[in-house]
Amino acid sequence: MDTFSNHLTEAVIATFKDTPERHRHLFASLVSHLHAFVIENECTTTEWMSCLTFLETVGKHCSEERNEFILLSDVLGVSALVDAINHRRPEVATPNTVLGPFFHEESPRINHADSIVHQDTVGERVLVKARVKNLRGEPIRGALIDVWETDGNGEYDVQRHEKDEPLQQDCRGHLYSNEHGQVELLALKPVAYPLPTDGPVGAMLLSCKRSIYRPAHVHFKITAQGYDPLVTALYTYDDTYVDIDAVFGVKEALKVKYERSLGKHPWLLCPEFILITEEEAQVRRNH
Amino acid sequence: MDTFSNHLTEAVIATFKDTPERHRHLFASLVSHLHAFVIENECTTTEWMSCLTFLETVGKHCSEERNEFILLSDVLGVSALVDAINHRRPEVATPNTVLGPFFHEESPRINHADSIVHQDTVGERVLVKARVKNLRGEPIRGALIDVWETDGNGEYDVQRHEKDEPLQQDCRGHLYSNEHGQVELLALKPVAYPLPTDGPVGAMLLSCKRSIYRPAHVHFKITAQGYDPLVTALYTYDDTYVDIDAVFGVKEALKVKYERSLGKHPWLLCPEFILITEEEAQVRRNH
Repeated sequence: MDTFSNHLTEAVIATFKDTPERHRHLFASLVSHLHAFVIENECTTTEWMSCLTFLETVGKHCSEERNEFILLSDVLGVSALVDAINHRRPEVATPNTVLGPFFHEESPRINHADSIVHQDTVGERVLVKARVKNLRGEPIRGALIDVWETDGNGEYDVQRHEKDEPLQQDCRGHLYSNEHGQVELLALKPVAYPLPTDGPVGAMLLSCKRSIYRPAHVHFKITAQGYDPLVTALYTYDDTYVDIDAVFGVKEALKVKYERSLGKHPWLLCPEFILITEEEAQVRRNH
Repeated sequence: MDTFSNHLTEAVIATFKDTPERHRHLFASLVSHLHAFVIENECTTTEWMSCLTFLETVGKHCSEERNEFILLSDVLGVSALVDAINHRRPEVATPNTVLGPFFHEESPRINHADSIVHQDTVGERVLVKARVKNLRGEPIRGALIDVWETDGNGEYDVQRHEKDEPLQQDCRGHLYSNEHGQVELLALKPVAYPLPTDGPVGAMLLSCKRSIYRPAHVHFKITAQGYDPLVTALYTYDDTYVDIDAVFGVKEALKVKYERSLGKHPWLLCPEFILITEEEAQVRRNH
C-alpha cells in the first residue's frame, strides 16, 4: 500500500465529521467496509466498473411492480439478516421471516372456513386450522391474520394479471381469530417457484450457478392489539429446496408437515403461531 | 445474536460454492462485508430500505450523459482507491489520478503552441509548457497528450451544450511531444467547481454537510509507445478546496503553482510528466 491509499479511508471518513450522528456512524462504517473490500480483493478497474454497471442495471429494472434491489438484497441474505436482527424473539415464540414483495395491504376479507382460492385456480386444496397464542399459552382473540401464496403453478396473482386490467386478487385474504384464538380457512398446498430470471439479479444467480428456487411456503402476517406484529411463512419440510432457499427465509421452527385428510379436502395443516407482547418486544430491542 | 443470524453469513457464502473462482472469492468477500455492516450497526429495517431506495434512485439518474453511480463511487473515495491500487508507481514518477466522467476519445487535434480554448470562452489564459520524460530523465518523443478542463465558469463543454445540437468541443484537445519531449499549448487557468447537486448523490453530500467542490484542476492523459498510460490531473496548490476535494483526486505530487508571466498571456505553467515503461508497470502489478 502506498501512502495515498493508506490514508484515503481515514480521509473519506473525516469528510463526514459534520454529518448528523447516526448517519455519520453509518457512513464511516460503509466507507470502511467498501474500502476494505476493494483493498482485500485488489479489485481491478474493470471489476469495479462492472459492479457499478451492474448496480445501474438493477436500478433500471426497478418499477412500481418490481423491486430488483430488494431482490438483490434477498439473494445476498441481507434482507433475512436485517429481518432477524430486528425481530429477535424468545425461542418458543414463532420467528419472523422476510415479508417478500407480494404482500398487499388490502386483501379480500374472508369469513371463518372460507377459501382464499378461486374455484378454478389450479392447485391442491388444504384446510388450514390455525391457532394464535401468547407466550403463556393463552389464546389471542381478534388477531388479524393475513395469508398469501402462489397458485399451483408457482405464480402470485400480481404476476398472472394483465397490466391493463384491474387486479383479480387470488390466493390471498384476511380474517380474524375467534375467542379460542382460532381461524379456519381453505388454501392451497404451496409449491416451490423460481425467482425471476429476466433481470440482472436472476442473471447473476445463473452465472454464479446458484439455485434460483424458493421452497414451497405460505406467507402469514399476524397483528393483534398489544402484540408485536409477526411477519412469517410456513415452509413445507420435505420440499426439494427447503434447505437451499434462494433468499434464506427458512428457519427450522417454520418447517411444517401437511397431513393427508379424510375429509372434504385432501390436505390438512394445523399450525400454531405464538406472539410476544409489545412490552416483551421492547425489552429485547433494548438489548 | 441468535443462531440464525450467526450462521447466515456462512450459509450465504456457501451458495457460491459452484461459482467460478474469482467471482466466488469476490462474492464471499462482498457478503461478509455487507453482513458485517448490518450487524455492527444493528441497521433497522427502515434504514436498510432507505439504502435500497437510495440505490434505486441513483440508478434512475444514470443516463448516456451522466453516470450517478460513478459519482457515488467518487464521493465515497472508492474510485480514487481503485485508481491508486491499480496504478502503483515509484515515487519519482507522476502519479495517476481519477479519470472523471468528462474525457472524450476524440478531442480536437492541435499543433504545437495552439490553444485548446475558443477565442470567446471566459477564463484567464495560461501558457502550458510541458515536458514528458521517463524514469531515467530521457525525453519521450511522440507522446500523445490529451488535455481537458472546464471553462472559467467551471463548466465542461458537454455540460454547456444544448442537447439537440452537435457538441462544440472546447477546452479540450490533443497533441504530440517533440524530440525534446515537449509540448506547448494555450489553456485556461482552471477554477474550482461544484459537483452536480440535482441528483441523489449531490443531495446526499448536502444532507451530510460535506463540501461539494472539486479544486481547480486540468486533466491530462498521456500515452506513448512502450510506456504505461498515465491518467492524471494538475491541481492548483493554493485553491480553497485543494485539501478537501469532494472526490479525493488530489495527491501532493500533483499540486502545481501557476507563475505570473510577462509574455502575451498572464500565466505560465511548466509541468513535467514522468512516465514508467510497460515493463516497469508490469513488475509492480505482480507485487
